[in-house]
Amino acid sequence: MSDDALVIFTPSGKRGRVALGTPVLAAARALGVDLDSVCGGRGICSKCQISPGYGDFPKHGVSVGAGALSPLNAVEERYDRIRGLKPGRRLGCQACVTGDVVIDVPAESQVHKQVIRKSASERVMQMDPATRPLYVEVAEPSMHEPSSDFERLAAALESQWQIKGLQADLAVLAQLQPVLRKGNWQVTAAVQEAGDGTPPQLVALFPGLREAPLYGLAIDLGSTTIAGHLVALDDGRVLASSGLMNPQIRFGEDLMSRVSYAMMNPGGAAEMTAAVRAALATLAEALALEAGIEAAAVVEAVIVCNPVMHHLLLGLDPVELGQAPFALATGQGLTLSAAGLGLTPIAAGARAYILPLIAGHVGADCAAVALSEAPETREDLSLIVDVGTNAEILLGNSTRVLACSSPTGPAFEGAQISSGQRAAPGAIERIEIDPATKEPRFRIIGNDHWSDDPAFGTPEITGICGSGIIEAVAEMRIAGILDASGLIGSAEQVGTARCVAMGRTQEYVIHDASAAGGPRITVTQGDIRAIQLAKSALYAGARLLMDEMGVDRVDRVVLAGAFGAHISPKHAMVLGMIPDVALEAVSSAGNAAGTGARMALCSVAARRGIEAQVRRIVKIETAIEPRFQEHFVAANAIPHATDPFPHLTALITLPEVNFNAGGSGEGGGRRRRRGQIGA
Amino acid sequence: MSDDALVIFTPSGKRGRVALGTPVLAAARALGVDLDSVCGGRGICSKCQISPGYGDFPKHGVSVGAGALSPLNAVEERYDRIRGLKPGRRLGCQACVTGDVVIDVPAESQVHKQVIRKSASERVMQMDPATRPLYVEVAEPSMHEPSSDFERLAAALESQWQIKGLQADLAVLAQLQPVLRKGNWQVTAAVQEAGDGTPPQLVALFPGLREAPLYGLAIDLGSTTIAGHLVALDDGRVLASSGLMNPQIRFGEDLMSRVSYAMMNPGGAAEMTAAVRAALATLAEALALEAGIEAAAVVEAVIVCNPVMHHLLLGLDPVELGQAPFALATGQGLTLSAAGLGLTPIAAGARAYILPLIAGHVGADCAAVALSEAPETREDLSLIVDVGTNAEILLGNSTRVLACSSPTGPAFEGAQISSGQRAAPGAIERIEIDPATKEPRFRIIGNDHWSDDPAFGTPEITGICGSGIIEAVAEMRIAGILDASGLIGSAEQVGTARCVAMGRTQEYVIHDASAAGGPRITVTQGDIRAIQLAKSALYAGARLLMDEMGVDRVDRVVLAGAFGAHISPKHAMVLGMIPDVALEAVSSAGNAAGTGARMALCSVAARRGIEAQVRRIVKIETAIEPRFQEHFVAANAIPHATDPFPHLTALITLPEVNFNAGGSGEGGGRRRRRGQIGA
Repeated sequence: MSDDALVIFTPSGKRGRVALGTPVLAAARALGVDLDSVCGGRGICSKCQISPGYGDFPKHGVSVGAGALSPLNAVEERYDRIRGLKPGRRLGCQACVTGDVVIDVPAESQVHKQVIRKSASERVMQMDPATRPLYVEVAEPSMHEPSSDFERLAAALESQWQIKGLQADLAVLAQLQPVLRKGNWQVTAAVQEAGDGTPPQLVALFPGLREAPLYGLAIDLGSTTIAGHLVALDDGRVLASSGLMNPQIRFGEDLMSRVSYAMMNPGGAAEMTAAVRAALATLAEALALEAGIEAAAVVEAVIVCNPVMHHLLLGLDPVELGQAPFALATGQGLTLSAAGLGLTPIAAGARAYILPLIAGHVGADCAAVALSEAPETREDLSLIVDVGTNAEILLGNSTRVLACSSPTGPAFEGAQISSGQRAAPGAIERIEIDPATKEPRFRIIGNDHWSDDPAFGTPEITGICGSGIIEAVAEMRIAGILDASGLIGSAEQVGTARCVAMGRTQEYVIHDASAAGGPRITVTQGDIRAIQLAKSALYAGARLLMDEMGVDRVDRVVLAGAFGAHISPKHAMVLGMIPDVALEAVSSAGNAAGTGARMALCSVAARRGIEAQVRRIVKIETAIEPRFQEHFVAANAIPHATDPFPHLTALITLPEVNFNAGGSGEGGGRRRRRGQIGA
Repeated sequence: MSDDALVIFTPSGKRGRVALGTPVLAAARALGVDLDSVCGGRGICSKCQISPGYGDFPKHGVSVGAGALSPLNAVEERYDRIRGLKPGRRLGCQACVTGDVVIDVPAESQVHKQVIRKSASERVMQMDPATRPLYVEVAEPSMHEPSSDFERLAAALESQWQIKGLQADLAVLAQLQPVLRKGNWQVTAAVQEAGDGTPPQLVALFPGLREAPLYGLAIDLGSTTIAGHLVALDDGRVLASSGLMNPQIRFGEDLMSRVSYAMMNPGGAAEMTAAVRAALATLAEALALEAGIEAAAVVEAVIVCNPVMHHLLLGLDPVELGQAPFALATGQGLTLSAAGLGLTPIAAGARAYILPLIAGHVGADCAAVALSEAPETREDLSLIVDVGTNAEILLGNSTRVLACSSPTGPAFEGAQISSGQRAAPGAIERIEIDPATKEPRFRIIGNDHWSDDPAFGTPEITGICGSGIIEAVAEMRIAGILDASGLIGSAEQVGTARCVAMGRTQEYVIHDASAAGGPRITVTQGDIRAIQLAKSALYAGARLLMDEMGVDRVDRVVLAGAFGAHISPKHAMVLGMIPDVALEAVSSAGNAAGTGARMALCSVAARRGIEAQVRRIVKIETAIEPRFQEHFVAANAIPHATDPFPHLTALITLPEVNFNAGGSGEGGGRRRRRGQIGA
């Protein structure tokens, strides 16, 4: 009879021979099988549950007898009695191999479990958190063998968990003595291994065996809104989501006005840094409260943001980002003390990871989109557009990925539009115009009915949001109210009283409650020009990347960002915002930046992966590419002056109208506006 | 003719062949010769000066012709014209090898130069600073190749100085952009390589070529006084020294009362932490001002202190240090952000290195003494005593080193002595008593004359300081005023009116100005008892280490600490403070802790060396050694009840007096006091 046995683990398929009597957990470690354990094999954490299989396994060439594992022992019986073991389950640290056996490791017993992302693409995400809970029993201090509490904790982590060279911040060291004594020298240490060559960090310490998971924060720090998710680090589930306004708005609505504030006011950058750090503290507290967990158990944070917010968060002067050559102070992925960035409510030793910036204009938020969407993993060519005040654009496939930023301005967010407003109840978000009657109908946020449906009622209608203005302009073009050059026709030219002269130009009235003292919502010639500037910049940026890639079409378009989720692909293409592509090849990635932040939060490999990918991404600077100007001018027409839009043409025939009665004043105005953008 | 040449460097003796035309600096690097350079061979820093030797060198077997180096070039001529080259000197980066040559590297051109320590032992100290100034030329930012300023700086340091994986704190990153632009992309980077496996740190950045050296602070953080030296990191010279009171004194005079304050007052430890950090800031500013340098050029700090001060400085609760088993939170050598410890006036990225603690009672100050005195480098057996409120004692030679702490109490510092005071003008520091007349004469601090010299005048005499009380008690024993048990004789027993009854005990009057409203300075029986307790504790600690070492004599005694510098070896031995040894074998190490701090400041190797040595030192805990009590009781007699003092006996015959007239009350009093010490 042999004194060892064959052990086969599923689903990994890893196999090997171990001595009879070897605990399954030890066999898993010896064979490199991913089997979780917090208590290190003491039979108390129950994370190492496995399911032995019995009978014939012809695929593995093995037959497993009833006695392949040692019988249920006292530790397992006690656990089963008190907490309940699922049928067929054993504790891997208690069950010993006594014969050839096939052992299944269920998903919840794997550290590096795969979880399905709840996003449109439903891609699988690998759990690989930087910070793990490790239960240890620490030697008590002795006058005969003087050594510090930290040395004894580090020695225990080294001997029980192979953690070498543990480091700790002073703030964590300060908690050491009371927690070790409260736990009677049994503690759960949260240890971060960043995977970047830095020594392992003691991030937090909990008395006794901690059964609850550790948590992390994924933060999308936008110029306007700061959004955060609180995530459990064992399986990546989101326990709470919250957002708040970026308090820097009081220093300037958009990024450039904040850079100006920093330039004009001594100490202004520091004021903005303090404001955003305080907001992060508030957000962290709110998320912990909402999730019903103790903030001190939040041991990781990941932050994504644009370059100006990045510098303002880190306390770096953003002034260089306001002028060519837009030099960043630092752009690498950074692992920093979370407390130093204002995240004081969370674990004292927690680290915040900040994704790398791609370039002076292309931020960590875009890197997070690149991580989430991973165009480099696909054979087809993806154009990924994150629409905001600046559009950040990625173009690529498995051969290479390019990135640029294009100065669209805030028109797509409803700003600088006469009736524009932020997306909020009462804002027009969808619109259709009858090509025959030129009459509009619309839907507003907070109301499920179209305005021509009696169920619509008489709600207050307050303005047009970003997606509404795009639809309005596209529908005006489809209905022949607007010509290809962007001119609104007069009432006579179009044949509707909704076109109203306004000085030398026309406006189109969508809704008029002014007689009753309500709002009058129109699309003016100025609004059309603002949208034309924005969409030309976006299209020109995409075209520049296509030039660089040597293509004149893409296979798919992904609209990222909260705004992207609301844009109608058909209307975006009528407008010429995006290159011509089959409508079904346009998708929304939702909050791809937030998804990328969560991926980096749950996986060290994802952090190292996006850092390597950002180094590979080819950055194109629109401001110095002469062809950007050409593309920008050509893209001014709706949808485009020269590029064919074959998919769009197959779908819809745009009326051949021309409302320019030979006047030149308008054209002059357009030239001035282009000059502003190009400056 | 050969296309290479033999180059011999002195004083290192390193030799090798290099291609003709190789600059001397490059040859030195290739051969591993220590030749300084800040500018990296650009002919601007002049740190690489060398002296070529011409003629026959039979020792090296080489004859050097006049053309062995290329002629003075334009860079050298310009340097000589403007700044002046010493005769025979060349710039190593400009002079090229054109034939066999012998090149002397003068001491000031070596990075790792040896400097003579200005201490009693005159040992040689090796310069090996952690932080070096490195001049670099950094690529300018370009929109074609977007990369951050930090990345370009790091790349320049890697290509020009082989610095790999540079890191920087946010506070340093914040200075990057203005300094790079001010220096027109030429900067001197202060880079710390701690030699402990951590990545190189950018500590500070200066525009252009920095010609002045970098600086460091060596701080001896005592319970009462905080002393600091500002040191130039190129050659280790002290540019300024200053001290201030430890502001924690308002929370408690001695360490244990501060531990009590922390225990009794919530937030008390944090208050004390804030106070001492603020004092460090004040000290750093004062030192920079005194030295006339900019505080931002101070790039390193080293701190030594006892364990309680260590914890209070680091923000760790010291309560565990007030009770057995005296467990430290952490005791390893630590490299921390200096700003985090209050040293905000110095370079934003400066690191503070804190020497390792030896045990819960034996601090980093004692480790600094061990570094400075290095008993492990000697064959003879050294007993090193650092006398303070606790005596820290080292015993060892090249085989092994032992350490302990002994609770002497503050009597040696003049505290708890009836006429005791701190060492200050007016305090009696030396005293002699005529054995025939029993009349004293003395000297006071601030007066160069003995009190029986007419030149002494009529200064104000305020009390007795620590060294004065030791001499007074020893002189009383020599003069037969005190018996071996420590009893002061009566006026009749001794035969002098200076012995005055004071209840059931006697006191000896040294100076009486009470008739004129001045002070009356006496040594009381209580004072004698306090000194006996202190000296017994000190002697017992030393004996305990001698037991452990298996010896009953030592070869030499070193008295460390400012107090040690003032103790008279003869009187210390009469008192039985230290084991019997030849008087000439007793030396003072001066402020050995401060010297050790300076050594660690100037040398990374010294830091790693003392860390390894502290791990090897055997710690003896006096509180749990039963023999400590025995030694303590036997050491109560003056000089000792049982141990022979052969060297002392050969020098002096102590009178055989006994003033105990059979009374037992006094003995009871002594037992109570011993009970207090042993508790």
